Amino acid sequence: MTVHRGDLLEAGVARALVQRIAPSHLLHLAWYLAPGQVWNSLENVRWTEATLALVRAFADTGGKRAVVAGTCSEYSPSAEPCSEATTPTRPATLYGASKDAVRTLAEMVADQGGLSLAWPRIFFAYGPHEHPARLVASITRNLLLGRPAPCSHGRQVRDYLYTPDIANALVALLSSPVEGPVNVASGNPASLRDVIEHIGRSVGRLELVRFGEVESPVDEPPVLTADVRRLREEVGWRPAHSLEEGLERTIQWWRLHTDECGAAEFRGHLSGSAVRESDPSE
Amino acid sequence: MTVHRGDLLEAGVARALVQRIAPSHLLHLAWYLAPGQVWNSLENVRWTEATLALVRAFADTGGKRAVVAGTCSEYSPSAEPCSEATTPTRPATLYGASKDAVRTLAEMVADQGGLSLAWPRIFFAYGPHEHPARLVASITRNLLLGRPAPCSHGRQVRDYLYTPDIANALVALLSSPVEGPVNVASGNPASLRDVIEHIGRSVGRLELVRFGEVESPVDEPPVLTADVRRLREEVGWRPAHSLEEGLERTIQWWRLHTDECGAAEFRGHLSGSAVRESDPSE
Repeated sequence: MTVHRGDLLEAGVARALVQRIAPSHLLHLAWYLAPGQVWNSLENVRWTEATLALVRAFADTGGKRAVVAGTCSEYSPSAEPCSEATTPTRPATLYGASKDAVRTLAEMVADQGGLSLAWPRIFFAYGPHEHPARLVASITRNLLLGRPAPCSHGRQVRDYLYTPDIANALVALLSSPVEGPVNVASGNPASLRDVIEHIGRSVGRLELVRFGEVESPVDEPPVLTADVRRLREEVGWRPAHSLEEGLERTIQWWRLHTDECGAAEFRGHLSGSAVRESDPSE
Repeated sequence: MTVHRGDLLEAGVARALVQRIAPSHLLHLAWYLAPGQVWNSLENVRWTEATLALVRAFADTGGKRAVVAGTCSEYSPSAEPCSEATTPTRPATLYGASKDAVRTLAEMVADQGGLSLAWPRIFFAYGPHEHPARLVASITRNLLLGRPAPCSHGRQVRDYLYTPDIANALVALLSSPVEGPVNVASGNPASLRDVIEHIGRSVGRLELVRFGEVESPVDEPPVLTADVRRLREEVGWRPAHSLEEGLERTIQWWRLHTDECGAAEFRGHLSGSAVRESDPSE
């Protein structure tokens, strides 16, 4: 493996890189994702511009297969599992609208350039190395440190997938011929209450969990889950870890990476950005 | 008036310009519009990137009011006049999809930045200085030169507006507080046959018009017309020229600008790109 580094937000960098290494395959995940800020930051528009420029450059230089990260936030809210074929896209945020715009144009660019393009719509992620302001990380760290963990009501239903599984799903998708949007999720939705209580029991500090202390945004969808038939049947992929297994491994990772020192380092982050429990996944 | 020049496709140029002159108002019309190529050229994606970068820079530097050119090609085909409020957008071309994407994101950028944004959806244009491969220009020039003018069946119904009227409408819109999409059209649709026969009679060479000699694209909408109530009632604008007056002035302009020399200069263009009669307007 050879690593080439470049700042995709800098004009011309993507094109120069792609021209130099002439890649056949592209797996593009980079985007702006600061917890709490991601929804409506203008950084989404910069990443829209940068991602379109990258896809154009890749198509222009003979790229064959691209997988570009989308999001469940493209979908119109639906009580049913979101389906690539039937659930309309109607993003409520600049983040979702930016991804929706990139997908629409990238698919047309791909069509014209003989490029095969898949668009994984990643649902909710958790795992090692997660930003400490995100849901699973912040609850786990608080409980490991013996601190109260303020939460919202917890009745939101979501589809969480362990990040190593997400990575494997993206590689499987890149290696497949499947084109267009593909939900990347477990197919086993859970309420946030279930997720949080599992962490509480596993750490042995369930009594520190404070449901109802954080207000949820009024526009937060009560249910956001995935129909995963495309991923299972067309890509032929299933997750290797159940939610319980993934949470156990994540908690174990945080046990090794949580101390008062680390907490101090992160405190600025945590006080500066409210934990929004349904942050998207990448 | 002070003219500042810059290539908006060059990274950083828009931002540097806007930072230097700190404009309060922005009227953005630039885009790629080569006849025949406009529909699916990747240049549309470059202009998407460039237009988003311009709007971001304008919002960042305290811009107050922006008018950015949209197109009737954003609309889903409809036999009724397209309405900003009720006709869905579902572009069939990369051109329409690119404009639709820019509008969606630019409106969100404007919302956040306290920027007032209007989005004129320009329908069909004709007038002096038009590219000679476009409908009114090519028919007029052929007939003035005594050559046959091959046309499609001519039953397409469109809303054509004289370019000096379009310019005035855009200035009126820029000076108004109206936000969001606004159709810019005459409100008086005509068939292409009516337009072409008017030119034929006015030039006195109706016998050179050959309906049915050019095949129309199968996906061409039979009707594409505008509900102009927002433009009339909210912006308070009406065109100063009827279709007949506008055509007369245009033909007069071509009389002064058509000779065998000019024809030779343009021949490359004309043979290289089929005249698509429903080319959009800008």
